[in-house]
Amino acid sequence: MVTGVDIAVVGATGLVGQEFLRILEHHPLRINRLKLLASKRSAGTNIKVRGCSLRVEETTPESFDGIDFAFISVSGEVSSQLAPEAVKRGALVIDDSAAFRMKPGVPLVIPEVNGSDVEWHEGIIAIPNCSTTQLVMALYPLHRANPLKRVLVSTYQSVSGAGKAALDELRIQREEMKVKGPSIPAVFPFRIASNVIPQIGDFDTYGYSEEESKIIEETRKILHDPDIKISATCVRVPVTICHSESVNLEFTDPMGVRKAHMLLDNMPGLKVMDGSGLMPYPVPWDLQGTDDVYVGRIRRDFSVENGLALWVVSDNLRKGAALNAIQIAEEVLNRRVLKK
Amino acid sequence: MVTGVDIAVVGATGLVGQEFLRILEHHPLRINRLKLLASKRSAGTNIKVRGCSLRVEETTPESFDGIDFAFISVSGEVSSQLAPEAVKRGALVIDDSAAFRMKPGVPLVIPEVNGSDVEWHEGIIAIPNCSTTQLVMALYPLHRANPLKRVLVSTYQSVSGAGKAALDELRIQREEMKVKGPSIPAVFPFRIASNVIPQIGDFDTYGYSEEESKIIEETRKILHDPDIKISATCVRVPVTICHSESVNLEFTDPMGVRKAHMLLDNMPGLKVMDGSGLMPYPVPWDLQGTDDVYVGRIRRDFSVENGLALWVVSDNLRKGAALNAIQIAEEVLNRRVLKK
Repeated sequence: MVTGVDIAVVGATGLVGQEFLRILEHHPLRINRLKLLASKRSAGTNIKVRGCSLRVEETTPESFDGIDFAFISVSGEVSSQLAPEAVKRGALVIDDSAAFRMKPGVPLVIPEVNGSDVEWHEGIIAIPNCSTTQLVMALYPLHRANPLKRVLVSTYQSVSGAGKAALDELRIQREEMKVKGPSIPAVFPFRIASNVIPQIGDFDTYGYSEEESKIIEETRKILHDPDIKISATCVRVPVTICHSESVNLEFTDPMGVRKAHMLLDNMPGLKVMDGSGLMPYPVPWDLQGTDDVYVGRIRRDFSVENGLALWVVSDNLRKGAALNAIQIAEEVLNRRVLKK
Repeated sequence: MVTGVDIAVVGATGLVGQEFLRILEHHPLRINRLKLLASKRSAGTNIKVRGCSLRVEETTPESFDGIDFAFISVSGEVSSQLAPEAVKRGALVIDDSAAFRMKPGVPLVIPEVNGSDVEWHEGIIAIPNCSTTQLVMALYPLHRANPLKRVLVSTYQSVSGAGKAALDELRIQREEMKVKGPSIPAVFPFRIASNVIPQIGDFDTYGYSEEESKIIEETRKILHDPDIKISATCVRVPVTICHSESVNLEFTDPMGVRKAHMLLDNMPGLKVMDGSGLMPYPVPWDLQGTDDVYVGRIRRDFSVENGLALWVVSDNLRKGAALNAIQIAEEVLNRRVLKK
């Protein structure tokens, strides 16, 4: 067993990087060395982790010398340049960008679903898009018991999925709302306060946004099922943290509500909230900062044979990004596939 | 032709009543007498309409003496008591509550879709639920050309759909957000600021909310098609005005995007916003106070044969309620079916 690992966190000052460091505070992962890396602009700031004040350094290829795990949470463009440099220097990259997810040699991993995929890595393991992860966490236990024929999802995605500047934009627009001031959107194509925007990323020639294509393609890759039929509509809503999803499923065989409830309840990392108690169904505000994927409103979809409808909520910065990254590292350590 | 009508607006101080009066300001409907009615609590206030200051009176059965049209926008419970009194006194009730919508002798009318249904009224004509109206406006021109087999809708419904107190609750929670103060929800089951709530009305034994059942049943009634398969998930979002809907359709025969675009474009009261211009798709913030139903993001749904996906936005207080009510009155006058 490894006694402690050398870790580099690239994008340490970003929303996902910060969440990653918050999780590390109370995480059993043994760390020898922790390097906080960022762009030149963000370098120089100090961040306290596990009692030590660490200086954020500018990322260079040499930053990865001697590093075991490089957790990269930056844009796809930047990651495309940095990740190969890290791999060259022997680091295992766990990448949160879209740059490598669909590449053939790159496992796309949710440990509870396809943890064994980490075994065939070639230096890079990708984290699925946040909206994909929570969807697949809910689909997997059901699909394993009764193959899915069709998945329809409409998302209600929080502003934090678009980064710090997006959260600032929402906050400023909310303040301006009181004085009815003008608001010029910069991060989003329209104002997001008191609005919903059915566009996340650019549209392709078929009219699908990048986020919608990601959900479709990534789900198939993670479930090792290129034939599963999926349609997605991705929408940004004025919520700060946690994505929600309205999901309609069609199974090969009949799937009762109780059976689905039981299968979901037995899934590690997933909690069913269904009908009773203080929280009869999951809502984003009350689940910020939690680790699990929450499923509620499990009900028959009477509009199709073997249909089921669900409501899925999860913290997009945690299981949707930073937590999943740490879990992948644990999976790699447990399976002893750290070195190629 | 009628030279002028006597109108009573019940619930004149409510959100829909106020919107109704705003529309009347510039509407060609000729009015002899306009009576503003409300509960005892709201009676006594003065409202300016078409240059006249009118006193809001408490609603009593006698309020309807000599009235041609009674526009009622109050709770189902209150309307159940008032509407029959108005009918007894010869008024034609145009009711915005859920009390009469599914009753056999009550037409449920969207004039552009089933205007001729006003002809068989027995004293009450019901306005569909706001989330139903905008959905059916988009379904109708497509369904007429190529029968729909299945409709799936996930809604993003604004807070104004729950009334004035709901808007106040959102505003107060937004202000408290800055000071991280506590917030005890009263109108909604959870806080609504920076949250989404997948519950509108109570749940039935199958796990469907009242709003979801309304969409399903009302759509079938308006389209005169009890067999059309529909599934709905209704969600409240922190938007003040305009409901949005993510819709997936399945047709009997192939339905191309261009064909759908053309059919929708020819539908009165509906505008297609698709891909170009300053508003390439409809969003709620920018469409508050407008009269039409807006459709965008028209694209193939590749997960099913003959599938199509849409995004629909409309002002829930206008076409979703007050405007539809006035249009029903016009339809009644045009078809000369005012008196039974």
